[in-house]
Amino acid sequence: MGEKVMNKQVILTNSVKGSLRESDMSLRTSTICLKIPDGCNGAVLVKNLYLSIDPYLILRMRKTPYLDAITPGSPIAGYGVSKVLDSSHPNYNEGDLVWGSQAGWEEYSLIKDPHNLIKIQDKDVPLSYYTGILGMPGMTAYAGFYEVCSPKKGETVFVSAASGAVGQIVGQFAKLLGCYVVGSAGSKAKVDLLKKKFGFDDAFNYKEETDYDAALKRYFREGIDIYFENVGGKMLEAVLDNMRVHGRIAVCGIVSQYTHEQPEGVHNLLTLITKRVRMQGFIVGEYYHLYPKFLEIVVPRVKEGKMTYIEDVDEGLESAPSALLGLYSGHNVGKKLVVVARE
Amino acid sequence: MGEKVMNKQVILTNSVKGSLRESDMSLRTSTICLKIPDGCNGAVLVKNLYLSIDPYLILRMRKTPYLDAITPGSPIAGYGVSKVLDSSHPNYNEGDLVWGSQAGWEEYSLIKDPHNLIKIQDKDVPLSYYTGILGMPGMTAYAGFYEVCSPKKGETVFVSAASGAVGQIVGQFAKLLGCYVVGSAGSKAKVDLLKKKFGFDDAFNYKEETDYDAALKRYFREGIDIYFENVGGKMLEAVLDNMRVHGRIAVCGIVSQYTHEQPEGVHNLLTLITKRVRMQGFIVGEYYHLYPKFLEIVVPRVKEGKMTYIEDVDEGLESAPSALLGLYSGHNVGKKLVVVARE
Repeated sequence: MGEKVMNKQVILTNSVKGSLRESDMSLRTSTICLKIPDGCNGAVLVKNLYLSIDPYLILRMRKTPYLDAITPGSPIAGYGVSKVLDSSHPNYNEGDLVWGSQAGWEEYSLIKDPHNLIKIQDKDVPLSYYTGILGMPGMTAYAGFYEVCSPKKGETVFVSAASGAVGQIVGQFAKLLGCYVVGSAGSKAKVDLLKKKFGFDDAFNYKEETDYDAALKRYFREGIDIYFENVGGKMLEAVLDNMRVHGRIAVCGIVSQYTHEQPEGVHNLLTLITKRVRMQGFIVGEYYHLYPKFLEIVVPRVKEGKMTYIEDVDEGLESAPSALLGLYSGHNVGKKLVVVARE
Repeated sequence: MGEKVMNKQVILTNSVKGSLRESDMSLRTSTICLKIPDGCNGAVLVKNLYLSIDPYLILRMRKTPYLDAITPGSPIAGYGVSKVLDSSHPNYNEGDLVWGSQAGWEEYSLIKDPHNLIKIQDKDVPLSYYTGILGMPGMTAYAGFYEVCSPKKGETVFVSAASGAVGQIVGQFAKLLGCYVVGSAGSKAKVDLLKKKFGFDDAFNYKEETDYDAALKRYFREGIDIYFENVGGKMLEAVLDNMRVHGRIAVCGIVSQYTHEQPEGVHNLLTLITKRVRMQGFIVGEYYHLYPKFLEIVVPRVKEGKMTYIEDVDEGLESAPSALLGLYSGHNVGKKLVVVARE
């Protein structure tokens, strides 16, 4: 057994009811040995560098979680970029940089079953991008847009939460394909980003619109072919009323509802029939076989500056709880992440 | 110009708000000449035999209709079986039996643009079946089940409004393919029909269930692969909570909501994501290119008694308004139709 070091952690204090509160998370200092313990064959021990702060996390903190539960009393864990300090798994070696969905909100994590850790090959891009455009959000945008939406050149695309981790990439994919794309976001600064930085054809601040239906009709006179759904609720209802015949809706998230005990109802599903709309939920985890193809498309464009990505970075593990809290109020501008350590 | 005869008609009195009321429809006697008028090239003049009484009709009677409007002051029109009395269209001859979506609720109709009238070839089955198992409802079941649901042998299928015009056929298609199929309906008599006549594996009376979720869990311990959606509202919510991963929902109708000014909301669309469900609305009109293939499958089975069909028949054009009214309260047992004349 090696020497033990301090390991700061962010713990889930209790199951989350309704909105996330600061008291649902707490800081703790534990200790960890930086060698794989005996009997942990196949494990890796990592130092966490960048934590991905993602809206879906609240769904894992509920008493009856929609996805794999995060257990009260344990560190929160999610996507992140880490460095391998020790490995008893043949695929990973000391010094490897990896990303995956098992990065604890702690300085060091022992990952007993690292099968979904992906080794970072190309380090000629910002390492934090593997929490974003080159990681799960990038793959989510890719799978949701290309695989779920069946997009065609010239179609009209609407993206909600468009300046977020996924939305900004969906918009850029839509432009690459020759679609007309409009995004909604929650501030003037975000709307400016969409139009000036990400190349959306247009964008609007949903907080300034009293009538979403009228807003959508302003930008989509002929209706919407594709909706990349990130928010749910009233925006989804307005979009349904503005879909074109044979439209497609990729349901990626419905973040406006994640903090509700009882989500709002959607009242106009009849339009699914009258417009023959396909509405499909998806989870990025089923599309990682496409990751090499995705990197081939995105990495060169990132390097050439033809695709861009905005990050909203907080420093220090201690900032992770407030970073997550802020996400549900839209405080972030771009992909939210926390730097635990830079190397 | 030939001799004029009396033409009894059922008129839409005014646009329908909320529920359909008896006063929204009225009887009128008009006159008609049984020859095509001059200048009506390409028209056919038909004698209406069987009128198909369908839930979607109310959607066409609204002030802002979801589908082609039925105009106040005009006869109601819908699917039906008719006999050609005179024709100035090369595809139709006097004496032809036809079915289509332009049968007026009247004794005789002049159809100016008969392009979607289908000539009945096989008369060795009850002629009224062309309002049902061999007509629009049959094609709806076929397209919705085989084309929209992508069914596989062994999958679990739930059908709501299962003893109705479409549901009874969906159940039989599902059994033909080797699926496990359960239906819901609104009376003990209907439930008995589903189990004893149509070969559903099981069925339940939704009016006797206080908890749809519990009812579905009783019949689908492992969840639902395919939902053929006819009713909407609370049943849809319960089904969403019981879908299996990669389930499919064909949205054929949401009849529980057709009589509401403001339909109920569906609150758990998040399950579309967590279960990766595809929910797709469709309209039978886009699938008629498959009609010959459909007839090849269904007609021999109907003749051999391997597929069966229950009709709920009212006699006389005068009974059409009450027949339609009863549909929204589930008074019909099986496919509702009205006999205007038998030949």
